[in-house]
Amino acid sequence: MQATLITVGDEILIGQIVDTNSAWIAQQLNLQGINVSGIISTSDTKKAITTSIEQAMAQSDIVIMTGGLGPTKDDITKKTIADYFGVGMSFDQGTYDRIVRLFERFGRTATEAHKEQCYMPDNVNLLLNKKGTAPGMWFEEQNTVLVSLPGVPYEMKYLMEYEVLPKLKERFPLAPIVHQTILTVGEGESIIADAVRPVEDSLPSNMKLAFLPNIGQVRLRLSATGEDEEIIRKNLEEKSKEIEALIPELIFGFNNQTLEAAVGDLLKEKGKTLSTAESCTGGYLAHMITSISGSSAYFIGSIIAYSNQVKQRQLGVQSETLEKYGAVSEQTVKEMVIGALKLLKTDIAISVSGIAGPTGGTPDKPVGTIWLAVGDATKIETKKLQLGKDRLKNIHYTSVQALNMVRKFLLAR
Amino acid sequence: MQATLITVGDEILIGQIVDTNSAWIAQQLNLQGINVSGIISTSDTKKAITTSIEQAMAQSDIVIMTGGLGPTKDDITKKTIADYFGVGMSFDQGTYDRIVRLFERFGRTATEAHKEQCYMPDNVNLLLNKKGTAPGMWFEEQNTVLVSLPGVPYEMKYLMEYEVLPKLKERFPLAPIVHQTILTVGEGESIIADAVRPVEDSLPSNMKLAFLPNIGQVRLRLSATGEDEEIIRKNLEEKSKEIEALIPELIFGFNNQTLEAAVGDLLKEKGKTLSTAESCTGGYLAHMITSISGSSAYFIGSIIAYSNQVKQRQLGVQSETLEKYGAVSEQTVKEMVIGALKLLKTDIAISVSGIAGPTGGTPDKPVGTIWLAVGDATKIETKKLQLGKDRLKNIHYTSVQALNMVRKFLLAR
Repeated sequence: MQATLITVGDEILIGQIVDTNSAWIAQQLNLQGINVSGIISTSDTKKAITTSIEQAMAQSDIVIMTGGLGPTKDDITKKTIADYFGVGMSFDQGTYDRIVRLFERFGRTATEAHKEQCYMPDNVNLLLNKKGTAPGMWFEEQNTVLVSLPGVPYEMKYLMEYEVLPKLKERFPLAPIVHQTILTVGEGESIIADAVRPVEDSLPSNMKLAFLPNIGQVRLRLSATGEDEEIIRKNLEEKSKEIEALIPELIFGFNNQTLEAAVGDLLKEKGKTLSTAESCTGGYLAHMITSISGSSAYFIGSIIAYSNQVKQRQLGVQSETLEKYGAVSEQTVKEMVIGALKLLKTDIAISVSGIAGPTGGTPDKPVGTIWLAVGDATKIETKKLQLGKDRLKNIHYTSVQALNMVRKFLLAR
Repeated sequence: MQATLITVGDEILIGQIVDTNSAWIAQQLNLQGINVSGIISTSDTKKAITTSIEQAMAQSDIVIMTGGLGPTKDDITKKTIADYFGVGMSFDQGTYDRIVRLFERFGRTATEAHKEQCYMPDNVNLLLNKKGTAPGMWFEEQNTVLVSLPGVPYEMKYLMEYEVLPKLKERFPLAPIVHQTILTVGEGESIIADAVRPVEDSLPSNMKLAFLPNIGQVRLRLSATGEDEEIIRKNLEEKSKEIEALIPELIFGFNNQTLEAAVGDLLKEKGKTLSTAESCTGGYLAHMITSISGSSAYFIGSIIAYSNQVKQRQLGVQSETLEKYGAVSEQTVKEMVIGALKLLKTDIAISVSGIAGPTGGTPDKPVGTIWLAVGDATKIETKKLQLGKDRLKNIHYTSVQALNMVRKFLLAR
């Protein structure tokens, strides 16, 4: 089963945005055993879109287009698709009613531009978009399926997950493919690859291991294909267990779990509450924790102590400590933990202070020097990181490390 | 002048990496007035690469390929290019000598695989790669140029900057193209489209307007092509001014500016400091503010008051207020601002309390009900949002709205 992806829009062609949609869609299709044989980014002119559709339809069973469905008049994808199929366009009252209702809920009125948005090619099968105003569109021509989706990532993802993938599974006979993803944190790709090599070298030919690194985390995805889903699933689980036995302390979960949810589950399981005291991560650690629905069960709050005054006044860091060791020091992060425990009255607190960069370093403490501490009323553990100069990467990586420190602290108790 | 980019390699097609090279190359070409009319990502098989080259050469003056030049045996780009041009391949002693010297410097020895890497198509014009072992390759066929570059970003960027762009400027008479992007916050795409329609309808044929929406923000990009850069830039500026006059209060900046940086600049300009008191945004607002390097000049810190106890104890919200109006209320966010101003001693504070979802709503206050307040010692302004059920989108959208409230509050002073 071959798929081609088309992204429509000049913003990719002038380099204003990076095409992350295609990578995500390609991942999802691969998980279903659908091979992506090409990705085309095309201008939003009728000629360019038509050429791309012709090329894609000629070489694939499935064509997925994103972008070019908004209410403004530079969006001509829909009209071009109708012309490609040689059909007219009709007003879809259902889509318009949804837009009117949606706008009413927000106390606003739909405009003339929204009415134009409701004209649909006559051969369309509309896909309900619960995250936005533009529905997805599904077309079939002989044995090929063409899908057109909005380019806004969360709308596209919703439509892929709840509409497109289920319909593709129904429409095409896909050979069974089974995946198991082992989620790790705390070591880099090459160290993990070396550690699990004995198992990787023993994999049968119908099984593959892929390393998917992200900032501070590495996912190990085992995939197996075969005739009998039952059997390949059993074989996959065996190999997964063998890998787990080689790196037990690095594994925080499986498949779609996240580190922030895994830490939340541990806190609930142990009946503990958490607070953070953040300097250089500036709230990103608290954001990761609170991105989990229901985190209010264990997360009480944070002090974002960006200035030293807040470190002193709210968290009770001693001025002598700041003078003698500096704000980026083991002593300071320890006192920040003590302060957060006392002020926010939680069982556990985690603190961070560092130089996120890209400027602000000194010979002693270059950019990327970061101290962390985690502790409770009886014990405080610290850790120093020495990172690069990329500010956002440092903030993200440090927050992941902080969550891992909380995880290990909880597991040791 | 039309260009097509081709990226070779399965890692993009399985979604393992996002293609950032193409966005960067597209930016560079656009700055030179070269229009990128398509980007093709293709598998590293001979058939797929050949098809892509044929398509690209047929539709463009310039084709730039990246990837598929490394020393591993799945890299067949070079042989495919030679076959496409119908030429043989010869060993290039100069390239081999460079590799040997490079390896000697690191105390290593070049391998047989490196020797294979030195066979080059007979019609190539080699581009010296000072950042790696694989040279860039420049080919010409009639009026079309084909360039093949390594996929490693810093090698590709070096070759583009020092070899490809200078040679392209020599080789082609480039027509100027000018862009201007107007950045807005506070209204959706369709409302803005309606507001600026008079100008959009008056645009000359050499000028285009595109709407690029993101969560809570819409970018309006004007592009113009023509003979004389001076003249089109002037015409573009005129049209930009006309658009600005229609939506002055929505515009926070131009081109590569960000909202968080614009608010930071305003705070510096007015000499004011800022703190946040966040409930449902859980630190994301503070993260947006501190994602800007140098934000410590105006951002002091935050209280993330996820539990009501922290709202009461740290921010001084009255228990009567919480009992009578609830944590998600105008009264509570007002008291949170007062508390943050007092506790963190800043000129301005912004507070947020709401139900981010997807659960936790009541008939009175459904999921997506969010209150915001911004204020200083003399005045507090509040705002209520009624959003959907997508937790992360609500958090992001609310943080953007909060920044916009700070921006407007500062502008009114």
